[in-house]
Amino acid sequence: MKTVRIDTPSRSYPVHIADNMLDRAGELAAEHVGICKAAIITDNIVDGLYADKLENSLRKSGFDTVKFVIPSGEKSKNAENFLLILNFLAENGLSRPDAVFALGGGVVGDIAGFAACVYLRGIKLVQIPTTLLAMIDSSVGGKTAIDLSSGKNLAGAFYQPNIVICDCSALETLDYEQRANGFAEIIKYAVICDKELFEGLKVPKSLDISDIILRCVEIKRDIVTADERDTGRRQILNFGHTLGHAIEKLSGFTLAHGKAVSIGMAIITKACENAGICENSCYNELVQMLNRYSLPSKTSHTQESLFNAAISDKKRKGEKITLVLPEKIGRCFLKTMSLSEMREIIKLGI
Amino acid sequence: MKTVRIDTPSRSYPVHIADNMLDRAGELAAEHVGICKAAIITDNIVDGLYADKLENSLRKSGFDTVKFVIPSGEKSKNAENFLLILNFLAENGLSRPDAVFALGGGVVGDIAGFAACVYLRGIKLVQIPTTLLAMIDSSVGGKTAIDLSSGKNLAGAFYQPNIVICDCSALETLDYEQRANGFAEIIKYAVICDKELFEGLKVPKSLDISDIILRCVEIKRDIVTADERDTGRRQILNFGHTLGHAIEKLSGFTLAHGKAVSIGMAIITKACENAGICENSCYNELVQMLNRYSLPSKTSHTQESLFNAAISDKKRKGEKITLVLPEKIGRCFLKTMSLSEMREIIKLGI
Repeated sequence: MKTVRIDTPSRSYPVHIADNMLDRAGELAAEHVGICKAAIITDNIVDGLYADKLENSLRKSGFDTVKFVIPSGEKSKNAENFLLILNFLAENGLSRPDAVFALGGGVVGDIAGFAACVYLRGIKLVQIPTTLLAMIDSSVGGKTAIDLSSGKNLAGAFYQPNIVICDCSALETLDYEQRANGFAEIIKYAVICDKELFEGLKVPKSLDISDIILRCVEIKRDIVTADERDTGRRQILNFGHTLGHAIEKLSGFTLAHGKAVSIGMAIITKACENAGICENSCYNELVQMLNRYSLPSKTSHTQESLFNAAISDKKRKGEKITLVLPEKIGRCFLKTMSLSEMREIIKLGI
Repeated sequence: MKTVRIDTPSRSYPVHIADNMLDRAGELAAEHVGICKAAIITDNIVDGLYADKLENSLRKSGFDTVKFVIPSGEKSKNAENFLLILNFLAENGLSRPDAVFALGGGVVGDIAGFAACVYLRGIKLVQIPTTLLAMIDSSVGGKTAIDLSSGKNLAGAFYQPNIVICDCSALETLDYEQRANGFAEIIKYAVICDKELFEGLKVPKSLDISDIILRCVEIKRDIVTADERDTGRRQILNFGHTLGHAIEKLSGFTLAHGKAVSIGMAIITKACENAGICENSCYNELVQMLNRYSLPSKTSHTQESLFNAAISDKKRKGEKITLVLPEKIGRCFLKTMSLSEMREIIKLGI
């Protein structure tokens, strides 16, 4: 079992990474949340695959368990399900020493984490991500959220879990698309700060998935620890995300997050290359890498529609917006610019 | 203008207390949140009385203003209005540097404060309480919440405002009941830790209301600063509240908070007197004081129904609950007990 310890000002917790971790979830969680009532929040697909395993493990360790299942997919990360979860916790009498167990991908982690944060102004939280994307991204760093009709992640909170359990065996049931989704974020980590990881990703078979997860969690840990509230350096993690979110929004959230971010990374990298901001080989290297993992790099949306969708992003500060720009593979930097400068950047990138 | 400065680990902010403060709200808020877009959240009664005054003041200082009005009353502190407010903020394009202005009583302060906390994971918040209760209680300390169908304040967050502006002139439009409501909490502060305030309250005409507000805010400041997250000493503020919330719940939230708390204080004080925990004169002194401010001290609910309503309180920790017990006027202490001990306490008090 590999373990990364995350120390934020508000909480310190371990991320455990190994195969067959669901069987040990009860024992590991007991160390960090104590034996209590466990409210498992999951989606209908993960429920069929892994909920029994988790419940058995928890019960064996003495936990009392209840379970709430939401439909699978980004559309479920909405206010209605959020309220259903809160009412479920209340109706089942969860009190402050009890815990929410978020079992699933990023949608489940985000909505269940947000519910754990606000129910009784905060109860315990165990994140058990079952997708590659959730393991390396949303389960670390404490960002929780739901989508509103006006946009993605518009309501949420910073709320650190008490423990994160990554069962790599769960990745076996991911389909090709979900796996690619995760690799989009792995490529993001490599481009923003790990040239060595980028080189490794060129020979996929040479890599052990638990090592990749470990490396990504470490990168995120280093960035998040320095900036828990996302006011400075942490914004570097948004590489490809301002345009990625715009593309996701324009697709009516039918395009997967990873694919949208891939296109976002490609546009901004092309723009930076055209503007002489980053090394000349960057865009080609990135697109080749995206292709290797069956990820897209182009969009048919116009400059204007991308711009309009992007300026509703919550990262906008009045008439200014901060974008993450690549300098070379393995190094990105933050740049705050006017909205008209951003419009120009988009033009250079599509 | 009297000012109390509140320093919590998460934020430092002033509470300003004086007459005619709404006229100065723009100027004062600008110092603490900067000139930005101001989303005024208020209720339909306060809207008719004070929203124009606030809007004028804000606009004169350069704020751009939008306004959302919820129906007056505790029933409005629900999940539906909470989502309407979040969507209103999103539709009006509020971004991270913008601010929510909560103009009204505790309901508005709680729901608007909670919305400010989670919208974009937190935007700025200006509390402008217009009731006595909100000025001395809910606007200080950062507790925000909404009610769920299972109970009061079941979802919420700790979120400190950037500034609190108490306009004592607004108290002139309070009806007798709302005023009594505030005095219930003032009496609570006196019983838990201020014998001198208790003596002063015996001669109401001798007191200046801004001095009383100042004193209560100072008391709350001292307690909250030491325990922002409500895990220890801050629970002393719950004197009368475990049973008070139970009584409120049993009334279907038709009984005012202050009245419910008054009855809660009376029951627990009578119980402590009967159990030999507090001085013999306590209960009589308290009931006389409650009478003086037209506050009730008795309930027709049975021991069993009070007990059942009380154990759904979010302060319960599994099979234990912490109650605030009076020792004498001006001193209370926390006692964690089993649920069956609490049942006995209720029996002794009704």
